[in-house]
Amino acid sequence: MPPSPIRKLAPYADAAKAKGVHIFHLNIGQPDVLPPDQFWDAIKAHSQGVLAYSNSAGIAELRNKAAEKYTEMGIPVSPEEVLVTTAGSESLSIAMSVLCDPGDEVIVPEPMYANYIGFSNAIGVKIVPLPTHIEDNFALPPISEFEKVVTDRTKAILICNPNNPTGTIYSEEQLESLRELALSKNITLIADEVYREFVYSGSRPKSVLELQGLENHSIMIDSVSKRFSLCGARVGFLVSRNAEFNACAVRFAQARLSSPTLEMHGVLGAMDTPQSYFEEVRDEYRRRRDLLVKRLRAIPGVICPDIDGAFYATVRLPIDDGDRFAQWLLEEFRHNNKTVMVAPASGFYSTPGHGKNEVRIAYVLNESDLNEAMDCIEEALRVYPGRV
Amino acid sequence: MPPSPIRKLAPYADAAKAKGVHIFHLNIGQPDVLPPDQFWDAIKAHSQGVLAYSNSAGIAELRNKAAEKYTEMGIPVSPEEVLVTTAGSESLSIAMSVLCDPGDEVIVPEPMYANYIGFSNAIGVKIVPLPTHIEDNFALPPISEFEKVVTDRTKAILICNPNNPTGTIYSEEQLESLRELALSKNITLIADEVYREFVYSGSRPKSVLELQGLENHSIMIDSVSKRFSLCGARVGFLVSRNAEFNACAVRFAQARLSSPTLEMHGVLGAMDTPQSYFEEVRDEYRRRRDLLVKRLRAIPGVICPDIDGAFYATVRLPIDDGDRFAQWLLEEFRHNNKTVMVAPASGFYSTPGHGKNEVRIAYVLNESDLNEAMDCIEEALRVYPGRV
Repeated sequence: MPPSPIRKLAPYADAAKAKGVHIFHLNIGQPDVLPPDQFWDAIKAHSQGVLAYSNSAGIAELRNKAAEKYTEMGIPVSPEEVLVTTAGSESLSIAMSVLCDPGDEVIVPEPMYANYIGFSNAIGVKIVPLPTHIEDNFALPPISEFEKVVTDRTKAILICNPNNPTGTIYSEEQLESLRELALSKNITLIADEVYREFVYSGSRPKSVLELQGLENHSIMIDSVSKRFSLCGARVGFLVSRNAEFNACAVRFAQARLSSPTLEMHGVLGAMDTPQSYFEEVRDEYRRRRDLLVKRLRAIPGVICPDIDGAFYATVRLPIDDGDRFAQWLLEEFRHNNKTVMVAPASGFYSTPGHGKNEVRIAYVLNESDLNEAMDCIEEALRVYPGRV
Repeated sequence: MPPSPIRKLAPYADAAKAKGVHIFHLNIGQPDVLPPDQFWDAIKAHSQGVLAYSNSAGIAELRNKAAEKYTEMGIPVSPEEVLVTTAGSESLSIAMSVLCDPGDEVIVPEPMYANYIGFSNAIGVKIVPLPTHIEDNFALPPISEFEKVVTDRTKAILICNPNNPTGTIYSEEQLESLRELALSKNITLIADEVYREFVYSGSRPKSVLELQGLENHSIMIDSVSKRFSLCGARVGFLVSRNAEFNACAVRFAQARLSSPTLEMHGVLGAMDTPQSYFEEVRDEYRRRRDLLVKRLRAIPGVICPDIDGAFYATVRLPIDDGDRFAQWLLEEFRHNNKTVMVAPASGFYSTPGHGKNEVRIAYVLNESDLNEAMDCIEEALRVYPGRV
């Protein structure tokens, strides 16, 4: 497992900080937004006594509540169909472990969330990337492209919707096509839907669990990390209506005994967060997105696609190499003694050489900081020696 | 992955509870002891603001503090040699993942902690059991027995010391022999040392990290679950002086991004728990052990070996089948409308048929409850239809 491009940058960031340089972190999806008060209230209420193992599948109250919330949302599931996990990371690694033997294949539109590559490496699953393109806002490729890469080792198609790292939201028609493909080829459609609430126009994207006839071929990855701004809580959900899949998934959950008990109680409290919290957060991110797009599109040579959801943008810059540019920003560039850290897009492509002149920007900073960060990027692109 | 015998019992336990029967839980290592106040104090102090991802290797303060504590204990390690994990379960699964490819072998004295079987199944590693015997208190087999099962796919020997499920503590001589074997065969010695403090006579058992010349061939699995009675916190450590191993282990940690941040702060607080806490807890368990051994040895036909550490005993009963007995206890047997739940030992043997007339008892109840539980077992063995 080679280190990701973004991890390779950490020492340069540390060195810059040691010199007193301020770094705007656009490199990681760690929101600055506060979690709902209900979370901390519930944590405090449970901060006493023995902290026992919880049921491997999660505390019953949280499974019940999660099922209730999905059902309210229009995705009817039972508590037995909801496994509480140690965050979305574990949901995905359990899903892959259940579906795949080492050497099996999972098709993933590319660029993709860098950790998909890490998870699959860890369990010996082969990621088969399917290119998407900045020119059409990283839309899902036509089904004929998927068909070309399906083999007898293909066990699943994995999508992230809304997408990290592109912000793309897949249309209902695209999802319907995937549904047909999954059924005709008997492969499972896994959808990472952790950015469900982060949608800046129109309504919630269709969930993979809403696709008709796909009950035994669909799996939803979910997490509270982004929704409630609780990245460090490590609570996620693995949701499927496939009873055989669920029975096997729970065995993997049993192998690690228990997820953290305390946070499950905290999240149980947070599940009753009023809708206004999500609306405020979404409106905040919409303003950030608008600012980001406006600033980027005003810079000569930058291609910023439409961004519909999540809080990332994968953008093309007039540069020779994103890895080099990101390192140069940390090592050499200063603007009023400040600089920015971005994620080289190469880490989001499993095809070598792809995304070379792209970077991913996580717009997780408040507007004032984001504006300053954009000043840095604008100036950096003016003076970067590898500008093309 | 078949369900473990103990999990198969859960529905019977639920049914008994639904009928108002009180069950003494001797089946799981979930202590009733309170964690140190320092843990909850630190949790409360951190119950605010954004709950961010922590460094994949753990928060720096906790790595520093853990290294300091190991060093004080006589096991000098640096913070870089301590990886904070999502409990001992994750420590072990990362260790196995780093050391083994699917199909590789790990030798484990049997009976063994049931979850070793689960972890290894999950990652395709083959457990090679090496029988130990109740007649000699489940002592480590002679090295010649280990040598017989070493193959070119053997990557590690895994011991648990003090042992779950037997309570055995391995002698320094036995560890020295393992050291020589590990070096001569170039295999790694993994020691699960999570019960280090639970020792009822003599001093702390020697750590695998104290064996001379084994710097590149030894790995310690550690956890706060038992030590601080924090099973639900899911904080563990993976400690090794092998830099190559550590570099790879941290990649696996990066693949799951972060362990729960809040508990790391809690555990950081708990690390300064005064020694008196551990002494009180140990004395409490010693009394429980003494009670358990005395009661069991007074029952005709029961073989209770010497128990030196941890809080488990694997005992032989005058019964036909431990699985059947455990189920019968829950389904049929009542003593003053109470019964006990024990873990059939079959789940701790990977060799089919072994441990058939044994059960594991976790003495995690206070003396009064433990006494009542022993009344139940005594009476149950008198009337059990499958008594032999």
